[in-house]
Amino acid sequence: MTEHPQAVPADGGRGPVHIAQKFGRFTEHWSPKIIAEANGWQFKLVKASGEFVWHQHEIDEVFLVFAGNVTIQLRDAEDVALGPGQLFVVPRNTEHCPYAPEECHLMLLEPAGVVNTGSAPGELTAVDEWI
Amino acid sequence: MTEHPQAVPADGGRGPVHIAQKFGRFTEHWSPKIIAEANGWQFKLVKASGEFVWHQHEIDEVFLVFAGNVTIQLRDAEDVALGPGQLFVVPRNTEHCPYAPEECHLMLLEPAGVVNTGSAPGELTAVDEWI
Repeated sequence: MTEHPQAVPADGGRGPVHIAQKFGRFTEHWSPKIIAEANGWQFKLVKASGEFVWHQHEIDEVFLVFAGNVTIQLRDAEDVALGPGQLFVVPRNTEHCPYAPEECHLMLLEPAGVVNTGSAPGELTAVDEWI
Repeated sequence: MTEHPQAVPADGGRGPVHIAQKFGRFTEHWSPKIIAEANGWQFKLVKASGEFVWHQHEIDEVFLVFAGNVTIQLRDAEDVALGPGQLFVVPRNTEHCPYAPEECHLMLLEPAGVVNTGSAPGELTAVDEWI
């Protein structure tokens, strides 16, 4: 096992994945790491810290928190506070901005190819890598 | 909040979901409970106990374990043992049979409409309900 991000693994990302171990293999914030793919969806780990950027996607985006806390700020609705073991679907075309007061470990579940900053490309736009 | 399974909730299953609380609201084994939907996928909680049935699906099926242990027996490959925080994609058209020596709490992630017993309908076939 290398400690560096990889291209798609030999098993096509279908092998068993130990999520906490994967979180231990990177430190960057707001830089999604792909851990699995199924039916055209990808499962991406993110370390969130501080405020992201207001943006929206043309697809529903699912957040699942493993450690820490994150608030999904929504432009047109009340904020949604999420802790470990909590899941939230940000509906498509809904402007949102995640904010993590301290480092938060979360998984994003969404169709392959979604760019993290969606409608607001900029310095936080990431190239997702397999890990 | 009722303690009985519900039809699709008013928010379309898009509200924040506390997964452990949802597991506390049912006791049946091998009876998937839908907790969220996004992009045509559903997120289903299952309490596994003992051996399920050998079957396969025409889609990839994702297992994510929250508590306990489950072994995904595969007809044509080595068994895959999963514990809390581990994820595995059973590839489409792959015969498999989950086995949990003690009760295991897991989430299934798959396109809406997938029947739990896939190619092997029988007494374990469930009608998925929102919870």
